[in-house]
Amino acid sequence: MSTWLDVPADHPFGIQTLPYGVFATTDDPERRRVGVRIGDLVLDASAVAALGGDPGDGPHLAAAWAHPSLNPFLALGPDAWATARWWLTEILTDDVHRAGVEPHLHALDRVVLHLPVEVADYVDFYASEDHASNVGQIFRPDNAALPPNWKHLPIGYHGRSGTVVVSGTDVVRPTGQRKGPADPVPVFGPSIRLDIEAELGYVVGGATELGTRVSVDDAARHLFGIVLLNDWSARDLQAWEYVPLGPFLGKSFATSISAWVTPLAALGGARVPLPGQSDPAILPYLEGDAFGLDVHLEVSINGTVVSRPEHSGMYWSPAQMLAHMTVNGASLRDGDLFGSGTISGPSKDSRGSLLELTWNGTEPLTLADGSTRGFLEDGDTVTITAWAPGPDGTRVGISEVTGTITPAR
Amino acid sequence: MSTWLDVPADHPFGIQTLPYGVFATTDDPERRRVGVRIGDLVLDASAVAALGGDPGDGPHLAAAWAHPSLNPFLALGPDAWATARWWLTEILTDDVHRAGVEPHLHALDRVVLHLPVEVADYVDFYASEDHASNVGQIFRPDNAALPPNWKHLPIGYHGRSGTVVVSGTDVVRPTGQRKGPADPVPVFGPSIRLDIEAELGYVVGGATELGTRVSVDDAARHLFGIVLLNDWSARDLQAWEYVPLGPFLGKSFATSISAWVTPLAALGGARVPLPGQSDPAILPYLEGDAFGLDVHLEVSINGTVVSRPEHSGMYWSPAQMLAHMTVNGASLRDGDLFGSGTISGPSKDSRGSLLELTWNGTEPLTLADGSTRGFLEDGDTVTITAWAPGPDGTRVGISEVTGTITPAR
Repeated sequence: MSTWLDVPADHPFGIQTLPYGVFATTDDPERRRVGVRIGDLVLDASAVAALGGDPGDGPHLAAAWAHPSLNPFLALGPDAWATARWWLTEILTDDVHRAGVEPHLHALDRVVLHLPVEVADYVDFYASEDHASNVGQIFRPDNAALPPNWKHLPIGYHGRSGTVVVSGTDVVRPTGQRKGPADPVPVFGPSIRLDIEAELGYVVGGATELGTRVSVDDAARHLFGIVLLNDWSARDLQAWEYVPLGPFLGKSFATSISAWVTPLAALGGARVPLPGQSDPAILPYLEGDAFGLDVHLEVSINGTVVSRPEHSGMYWSPAQMLAHMTVNGASLRDGDLFGSGTISGPSKDSRGSLLELTWNGTEPLTLADGSTRGFLEDGDTVTITAWAPGPDGTRVGISEVTGTITPAR
Repeated sequence: MSTWLDVPADHPFGIQTLPYGVFATTDDPERRRVGVRIGDLVLDASAVAALGGDPGDGPHLAAAWAHPSLNPFLALGPDAWATARWWLTEILTDDVHRAGVEPHLHALDRVVLHLPVEVADYVDFYASEDHASNVGQIFRPDNAALPPNWKHLPIGYHGRSGTVVVSGTDVVRPTGQRKGPADPVPVFGPSIRLDIEAELGYVVGGATELGTRVSVDDAARHLFGIVLLNDWSARDLQAWEYVPLGPFLGKSFATSISAWVTPLAALGGARVPLPGQSDPAILPYLEGDAFGLDVHLEVSINGTVVSRPEHSGMYWSPAQMLAHMTVNGASLRDGDLFGSGTISGPSKDSRGSLLELTWNGTEPLTLADGSTRGFLEDGDTVTITAWAPGPDGTRVGISEVTGTITPAR
């Protein structure tokens, strides 16, 4: 399968990938609509769909893609997503469509990318055993590394959907209360332990009715695609506030996601078995087609790679998280987003947070310029990139998420 | 101040109240728009605003009120809210407007009420000292009743905005994992400790920019109004899941709010000082015009009053909660909703949850029909009503929130 466009066969955003985003051209910055990335170009999807020649879903797709978010497309459901991908592949591979399509391709450097999804509810999970175990040892040294419930259910909590921002958005250092063990009373000021969490985010489509649940086997019909997600975390604020009701201001100041959503349909070659869930056995509602995803992440600070987390090692799968999230009858909405939780592996260089990489700041990292970091400094830029195996030896690029810390206001 | 309508002077929804909701008539059920309650009638607000004769904001108000949620009206901000209330009062008190207005009044029993707000982010706080102390004693008997952070900051967490439902919506009993101390492994099934939490909800308008904060003194400009809120809680699911990241499925299956939003402007006579925050002293960012609200709640199960919580006893005020929620730079959106947390007083008959009223089921309540309740049974209807002091000895009615438990699916 090859495209008539001039895209090298080994390009991570070749015909095997085709992620969706929301863009406007620099000439017409107010008109946001859905785009599809191919190579270093952006296809104006609604404009092409409006030309017709597609498999009968043209009017629906053209209308859905004309919106400034993916939500109306997410609402069309998995059969429409499959049709759309088939049709996009068709027009980008059969040369007969070239003349019609070419006028609707924009150079990536001539567009502005916006938040791809109007996030409905945002949930973050805690699905890496190595991460949970590391955090337990750091935050709760007197207890077992894993909480007693950890291997029975995917632990999660709701985050602030209104502060999910698109890759490239600056992150203002948050201010708040912190209290170390030696402080007699809490201290107020800018966070001094500002951290990252390298995660995948799963984008949901296909709303469900309140009071119903989605099984593990049906979850893939609601899992539209993935983004890279950086769950910025102020560890000092978090440590003081989180007992007993969980993280709040330590997380709610910003969560960054990549501008492009990689459809699950592009990740067929990345499906892998889970590492294992036999001890203890999981409850039946968490059983089923609970595939893992072989996604390779790379985290860099100011250009220095500091970690290479592997998503394939996650204990819980996205299908299980979605089944768990709805087992109590909670409904789904188009645009729901849930995160994997920090992706950490057993080796030190595969940990997905500075909290773990520097063991709460006690073992600082050294960057390429010779400077050291326990936590983030103002001006630091954190970038997460990733790829997954595609068909025929190709790589599916997972679009980067990046952000720069600006001083507290 | 009196209205030309035939509304008794002691009616809790007289001219002193004027709450906003979203309605459709039974004749035309698809056309949802903003209504204002007066007595037992609903004023079609956009239809009247479109007639003109208002103080110049007519076109804005008519357009905002034509929407199927209050959100566009919330976006107009506090000056527009004040103008709107002044104008509504004018047309309902000056007889000259009678002929124009009367055709746009609908009997309350001829309309269907819908969720008044498209909820952006939903946060729930934990602001009653008696509630937090009771829960601490029940859930964490080996620790101090209050967590160390409790009197330094209003503890809160994000809930699921997609499962906020309007009063009258049935609540399906949730299913999930629970594990008592004597259970070797978790058990799966319908919750057997289904509870209520009687709260006020605060409805936010006036979006803010990411990275900025709202002070206590400015909070009132973003606090549009209040609703009654029942934060349904499955105590068995919650107890097993909530360490370390807080409540999730034990709460996310449903949160009910009243159909009418009572504007803060109607509650001037209900402003009271807070009970006191001197020991320990609070940080400066939580100081300012942090008024309490003297709202009297009544909780009934199947018609038997089981509790009369007093909102005036809350330790933290809504203005302080809003200032805290944004101190880290988290932005606000129109339609954000935050809850007070369960409102409990020092006496047993003023506790706002069954967990506390029955001391985790060990001291069951007896209802009027002679049956007893530790927690809720299928078919139970829980109704919360409330009122606050209004001008000239009147009462401001706070519209009820009610819901009935249906069996697990």
